Amino acid sequence: MGQDQTPQSSVFDLAAVAAQSNGGNNDLLLPPTRFVGSPQKPSKMPYTKYAAYDKQIPFDYPERTWPSKRLERAPRWVSVDLRDGNQALVNPMDSERKLRFWNLLMAMGFKEVEVGFPSASETDYDFIRLLIERELIPDDVTIVVLTQAREHLIRKTYEALRGAKRAIVHFYNSVSVLQREVVFRKDKAGIKQLATDAASLCKELEGAAGDTDLCYEYSPESFTGTEPDYAVEVCNAVIDVIKPTTDHKMVINLPATVEMTTPNVFADQVEYVSKNLKDRDSVVLSLHPHNDEGMAVAAAELGILAGADRIEGCLLGNGERTGNVDLVTLGLNLLTQGIDPQLDFSNVPEIRKTVEYCNQLAISERHPYAGNFVFTAFSGSHQDAIKKGLEARQQAADRAHADLDGFLWLVPYLPIDPKDIGRSYKAIIRVNSQSGKGGMAYLLKTNHNLDLPKRLQVEFDRVVQDYADRIKMEVKDEDIWRLFKDEYLPVEEGGAVAAGAVVQDSRDESLEQWGRLKLLKVSVSSGEDGSDTVLKASLRDCGIGPDDETVVHEISGMGNGPLAAFLNALQNLGIRVSVMDYVEHAMTEGTDAMAASYVECQIGEEGQSKIIWGVGIDSSITTSSLKAIISAINRAQR
Amino acid sequence: MGQDQTPQSSVFDLAAVAAQSNGGNNDLLLPPTRFVGSPQKPSKMPYTKYAAYDKQIPFDYPERTWPSKRLERAPRWVSVDLRDGNQALVNPMDSERKLRFWNLLMAMGFKEVEVGFPSASETDYDFIRLLIERELIPDDVTIVVLTQAREHLIRKTYEALRGAKRAIVHFYNSVSVLQREVVFRKDKAGIKQLATDAASLCKELEGAAGDTDLCYEYSPESFTGTEPDYAVEVCNAVIDVIKPTTDHKMVINLPATVEMTTPNVFADQVEYVSKNLKDRDSVVLSLHPHNDEGMAVAAAELGILAGADRIEGCLLGNGERTGNVDLVTLGLNLLTQGIDPQLDFSNVPEIRKTVEYCNQLAISERHPYAGNFVFTAFSGSHQDAIKKGLEARQQAADRAHADLDGFLWLVPYLPIDPKDIGRSYKAIIRVNSQSGKGGMAYLLKTNHNLDLPKRLQVEFDRVVQDYADRIKMEVKDEDIWRLFKDEYLPVEEGGAVAAGAVVQDSRDESLEQWGRLKLLKVSVSSGEDGSDTVLKASLRDCGIGPDDETVVHEISGMGNGPLAAFLNALQNLGIRVSVMDYVEHAMTEGTDAMAASYVECQIGEEGQSKIIWGVGIDSSITTSSLKAIISAINRAQR
Repeated sequence: MGQDQTPQSSVFDLAAVAAQSNGGNNDLLLPPTRFVGSPQKPSKMPYTKYAAYDKQIPFDYPERTWPSKRLERAPRWVSVDLRDGNQALVNPMDSERKLRFWNLLMAMGFKEVEVGFPSASETDYDFIRLLIERELIPDDVTIVVLTQAREHLIRKTYEALRGAKRAIVHFYNSVSVLQREVVFRKDKAGIKQLATDAASLCKELEGAAGDTDLCYEYSPESFTGTEPDYAVEVCNAVIDVIKPTTDHKMVINLPATVEMTTPNVFADQVEYVSKNLKDRDSVVLSLHPHNDEGMAVAAAELGILAGADRIEGCLLGNGERTGNVDLVTLGLNLLTQGIDPQLDFSNVPEIRKTVEYCNQLAISERHPYAGNFVFTAFSGSHQDAIKKGLEARQQAADRAHADLDGFLWLVPYLPIDPKDIGRSYKAIIRVNSQSGKGGMAYLLKTNHNLDLPKRLQVEFDRVVQDYADRIKMEVKDEDIWRLFKDEYLPVEEGGAVAAGAVVQDSRDESLEQWGRLKLLKVSVSSGEDGSDTVLKASLRDCGIGPDDETVVHEISGMGNGPLAAFLNALQNLGIRVSVMDYVEHAMTEGTDAMAASYVECQIGEEGQSKIIWGVGIDSSITTSSLKAIISAINRAQR
Repeated sequence: MGQDQTPQSSVFDLAAVAAQSNGGNNDLLLPPTRFVGSPQKPSKMPYTKYAAYDKQIPFDYPERTWPSKRLERAPRWVSVDLRDGNQALVNPMDSERKLRFWNLLMAMGFKEVEVGFPSASETDYDFIRLLIERELIPDDVTIVVLTQAREHLIRKTYEALRGAKRAIVHFYNSVSVLQREVVFRKDKAGIKQLATDAASLCKELEGAAGDTDLCYEYSPESFTGTEPDYAVEVCNAVIDVIKPTTDHKMVINLPATVEMTTPNVFADQVEYVSKNLKDRDSVVLSLHPHNDEGMAVAAAELGILAGADRIEGCLLGNGERTGNVDLVTLGLNLLTQGIDPQLDFSNVPEIRKTVEYCNQLAISERHPYAGNFVFTAFSGSHQDAIKKGLEARQQAADRAHADLDGFLWLVPYLPIDPKDIGRSYKAIIRVNSQSGKGGMAYLLKTNHNLDLPKRLQVEFDRVVQDYADRIKMEVKDEDIWRLFKDEYLPVEEGGAVAAGAVVQDSRDESLEQWGRLKLLKVSVSSGEDGSDTVLKASLRDCGIGPDDETVVHEISGMGNGPLAAFLNALQNLGIRVSVMDYVEHAMTEGTDAMAASYVECQIGEEGQSKIIWGVGIDSSITTSSLKAIISAINRAQR
């Protein structure tokens, strides 16, 4: 191969030396101590086969300023879904899917979209023609087209753009140490020449663009495998050819084609490039991070701190191999910092649905912001804290007379209000054998308007935990409601509540009996001068043994209120009850609301008494509290 | 609530102020320029509802040293799959699944495993008893159990540990600004008291541990929502109570319970804590990063640079909401830096299978190292570079007389050798309408032993691209092979090759004709003194028109070799062919190998000639080259 300019030394040799000097890593094992965590052991993984990144690309940048910076504003966003994302699919999108994706991007507010590699693929070419000819590109949207820098490819690229109002022609060549040696077999000067030749060729053929308002983007591909000073040298040489101005900028795009190390190193490199680029004011500095080490989001954010103006990525992280940086996560991370993402993420479920349809690829249930489980807290303490956080926020908003929707979002374990991105609270709380009472209490409050007192939560929690431990499955909302009814409410009460029936109704005689006692009728009268309340009641009593006969007791008692009078009346049946705590609330707004009563009762003789809760629901606040006492008595005798 | 020590100012008020001062973000829109990428527009996302992290937790740490550090060794690994991971599942693992997970962790070499929250869950309690009673815990493995710091819970925790050789009791309380105010309603002193009371209680009940060798772990939960100086104050107060020594350390674990901002801020906090902890030499500093903003891996790695010794996480990133940090990604990232991960990742498919089975949750196809597509390159230039990289590595290893398996791994686009983690190259290359000739060439070489010359690749690539554009689907290996045979090889040749038949065989008369000419017989003789070669051949000729009759020509010619003699002989039929390039190689090793010949021919009269490739396969190197010429002629006349 006569044209090869093979470098003198091999990248393998250089790095082999580096790898050898790496070989002593097992000496770095922590020394054994009486700390009970035993030291780990050397593994059989072939670590000497890999060279540390800083041995491959030695670089330090102590002048860095980015670590003290904070995110301040959204970068320019570029979706490369229709190019990088699409080319990495088992089944690339057909034009129906591409159009659907395009429409989503437009609806979200993207102003730059890389639409394809028209000189390499007829499908891409046809889609770009379709966008232009059907006038689907809004006036303020710029399409980006990728091309290798060869004359016939550039010509075909301009052909594809015919009639477009604005476009960016994006050309690239790989400049990394490894690719220079093993792929292109050229030295640094030769590789730089490829880039500047490409730039010259673009300028030369510019006339072919017709009326299209044109800018250029250059990517020193495999930037992360490249010496930063050489990358700057190549970029500056390209800038010299393109001659951008502050009025007519060009894009220099640094691809983390492969993510090769921690993102602080990438940020150092970005800041170095940003500070050393020619005509920096005439350049839009862009990043294109891939996710090989799972840190693309961090690389993009630290890169922005380090000076990048523009980010190329895909929705939900599609793209070659591990994907491009996820623009949804990046955008919503900005939102959580009080920064306008300048994209519309108000319907993440719809974004997800479209992306999964077009890519024919599912995201994980734990995907930030979009996964099914990310607004689900299973842990009891998390659930409890979320409940308290939501309440505290409501109270703070009330105090400030602020609209809750606009009021500051600070809720434990929920970095974002799910509603803001089209998701709901519904899935937040589930209960399983691992979770505590918070989740159960939240569900009863949200779905059944029952606001259980704390000690009742503790009591009922044991019921739920027993059940969860027994079934070893998630306990669903309907399970909790059933457990609660079985435990605290008479069988027929649920039906009665639903039908709006009152307690005097006795049509339920045939229903399965729930406990010993059932309140049939009650009348309460109190004197005008605040004298003692007199209470009369009919109680059905089916006894406590299997052979006991069912009888109806007519009882009466007096006290300083209906509760006291009822307790006195019960003494006539030999039932000793005293009330330890009492809470009652309306279940809905309005005068016809049902009331829920919770009483904590001490039941039985001293020395052998039980402390137990009862719950009653009724349209009458009096009757509901009496039912709560009956509930406690029945539970005590079960 | 008499015990409340409600702080004077509300976190909502403080942050509301911060949010207001944030409100001008839209002023930070980039100014419009003639750069064709139009400025983005403000969105309707409610960004004023969120406060920037540094407004919530103001903190800067200019003394930081971590950005210049590099990863040097594996941290202590702690799997929290059976606790944090398990509690975040819709269906928590039953004991069969837990045991399977435990066995996987043991096989991988974990020395610390958090096994549950035994005082909160009977299931966890039972599983810990099972591990201990069946003696499933190796002597050098330490189990960690989580507990809240309340007497009956701690007592139950020690009960669960009865008979264990070594254990870490892990207690925690939430110390964040938000949780202090809305969940615990205590001031800083009150929250610190909770932590030290818990520590005292643990120490007090230590006797209950029996013979278990015991250490403690304390987590200031919601660390990322906490002022770092206050977190240090609480941790130091706990250290004062526990009194760890260099011989008997304790763990201080900093949970990024919710990931709230960029990982550089987290790293600053970790370095600050590491530098300000009491008795640092007696403390193992641990991190527990969650992934709410998609940066947990980065937070863990930068945290290690900042001084952390130990990482808690889950395999493949299970855990509450968006999950815990993924220990597989972290470990393999270390491997790519030439560092022994001290865990066995040699069978990632098996790890993935077990984890997905136990969690009943699938990971994404783009999950680093473990996803189905992460060793798949669809892009043609990537495929080409990978092919060249693999070849160059082989050559370098050969030159160095090194064993390829141990030789330095430097291959474009593949940061790790898939073989090292139990995966294979097979899936690396697929071809679709977006990819170029590299993938196709790789497949033909790998699966069919055909090493196409570069210009032939270019020619055949057009065939593949046309097909890919037409079907708009992935082109599979078998499609490429079929396209290649249809294009270059006679219909019967595939069969003949497979059967080892030679060209003299004429049993295929009845088969569908592939082109105008077919070589039936050939004999070659050359004089002893290097004089001209004489070639005689029988050619079946079915003409070029539909009505042409099939005839058999006997032709002969002379030249300085068989090719030249054959070309001369063809002139007798009026066919003008000259050979531009010629490549031939054996398809397998050994003397009975088949040969593949590739000839680039100029066919036809000057001025109207075509340049076209032909391919021949035969056991005779002479016959294969003649067949290649016939192949080119037939293609030219199609």
